[in-house]
Amino acid sequence: MDQLLFILTYVAVIASSISGALEARKNQMDIVGATTIAFVNAFGGGTIRDLLLGRTPVFWVVDPILTITTFIVAIISFYRLDRISSILLITADAIGLGIFSILGATYTLQLELSPIVAILMGVVTGIFGGVLRDVMSNRIPSVFRQSTELYATCSFAGTSLFILLTVFNFNAFLASMIGALTVFLLRLFAVKFKVTLPSP
Amino acid sequence: MDQLLFILTYVAVIASSISGALEARKNQMDIVGATTIAFVNAFGGGTIRDLLLGRTPVFWVVDPILTITTFIVAIISFYRLDRISSILLITADAIGLGIFSILGATYTLQLELSPIVAILMGVVTGIFGGVLRDVMSNRIPSVFRQSTELYATCSFAGTSLFILLTVFNFNAFLASMIGALTVFLLRLFAVKFKVTLPSP
Amino acid sequence: MDQLLFILTYVAVIASSISGALEARKNQMDIVGATTIAFVNAFGGGTIRDLLLGRTPVFWVVDPILTITTFIVAIISFYRLDRISSILLITADAIGLGIFSILGATYTLQLELSPIVAILMGVVTGIFGGVLRDVMSNRIPSVFRQSTELYATCSFAGTSLFILLTVFNFNAFLASMIGALTVFLLRLFAVKFKVTLPSP
Repeated sequence: MDQLLFILTYVAVIASSISGALEARKNQMDIVGATTIAFVNAFGGGTIRDLLLGRTPVFWVVDPILTITTFIVAIISFYRLDRISSILLITADAIGLGIFSILGATYTLQLELSPIVAILMGVVTGIFGGVLRDVMSNRIPSVFRQSTELYATCSFAGTSLFILLTVFNFNAFLASMIGALTVFLLRLFAVKFKVTLPSP
Repeated sequence: MDQLLFILTYVAVIASSISGALEARKNQMDIVGATTIAFVNAFGGGTIRDLLLGRTPVFWVVDPILTITTFIVAIISFYRLDRISSILLITADAIGLGIFSILGATYTLQLELSPIVAILMGVVTGIFGGVLRDVMSNRIPSVFRQSTELYATCSFAGTSLFILLTVFNFNAFLASMIGALTVFLLRLFAVKFKVTLPSP
Repeated sequence: MDQLLFILTYVAVIASSISGALEARKNQMDIVGATTIAFVNAFGGGTIRDLLLGRTPVFWVVDPILTITTFIVAIISFYRLDRISSILLITADAIGLGIFSILGATYTLQLELSPIVAILMGVVTGIFGGVLRDVMSNRIPSVFRQSTELYATCSFAGTSLFILLTVFNFNAFLASMIGALTVFLLRLFAVKFKVTLPSP
């Protein structure tokens, strides 16, 4: 299971790094901007989570391999990646959303904090990379916009399910898998059918 | 006194949540944006303060009731609140500014840090919720603009008075009340008479 | 050596404070905006570094003299500074970039973290003050733009050299000086000859 999680984490981080770097290129940034945006996109949510929970040094500071991988992927994407299937990117990003959400909730439970806060922290871990990316690119975070398909909502639903299963002493591995898969499938569903949240 | 403080904190947080959610609606955000902006508006200043001082997990992470209240208020405000008196909002916000400022300074003194830093931390707690709200809404923070009536200044004056009284061993409860009341009244005065800071 | 570092730190912080305050004035901010932007410009990078590494309370919270100096310099710059040589500002800023970068890397090594992370943290310390300043001024960080002369790159090169020397047990004082001087000279060179990074 640890190996699966390890691989999925790399998939998620690499996907976030690629999409961050391409985004920066679209915004006429240079390689400094591209690597920073890639980094923020991949690690921003987890960093905010670690800071709020007091888990310092934050996770990537103690994992140089992950850090270097992110940089190298960002540099290659910025200079060499001509076209990439948007379905591939969205799928990889959805994997990331699922994994990051469940990881965020898990770490919060480990500190014996309230399940409510664990759900919230799952969502924060899942979406704040993109929020920081957009703030640094000088625009309203896409996840806040009415035209955006369900994103935080998928994280919220899957993480809530995971917490519910955990509270009822469900097997931890299975609960994580079900939670992450729920996030992932909901997100793909929302993109496919252009589901957005109701306006006021 | 603790009960009074408890009630005033809820008043302040609810006011910040309402105004954050309404602000988000004005900016065409969806409910994810509205709850996030509400949350940031209510808890941003205290969160920055806790991070800078190393008080982690930050305050709202260990207070799920306050967290849930903020969310529910934000959701109701976003979907159901048609009109709300701006005087009421400004008054409640001024209560928040007063309470948050004094709380920020108090926590800093508890760590035996310098009184100067305590004043600064009071102001940060009072104003940074609004600063983060505006940054996430993609505009220059209103509290930095020349046309904005005194805001940080009220926090600075009241917190300084509170620190002065504390340094001279004044009764802590009275000093807090006088400080918070000073912030509150100065702010209402500034709005009423459109007092702004001198330009260079 | 400690005395030299002390003086250079003040030079760097004062330069950052002046340029932050002038920047804020150009953007029609009031004195609250000017002092905040000055503060963020001078202390933002070190603050992010301290938060990521878990060094709290962060450095300026425990150094009231430095904090007050920054404020007074910002206020004077905002109200009284009519013109200032841009060469002087760029030079002082380059001194800051050099010192902040090496300090960031040094603190990271003290926590026995990886040299790779130390380089990264040096760059973060050097550039994130400006990034936060620009984000709060509602624009894309200048250090991310293709038209900006080498900035993060200078920090990266000098910090890498410093780390390399340190890994090979070079004298710490000399390594710091060589590293900081490399950052400083590269930056002046880049500005003088308008060197920018290659676009994709």
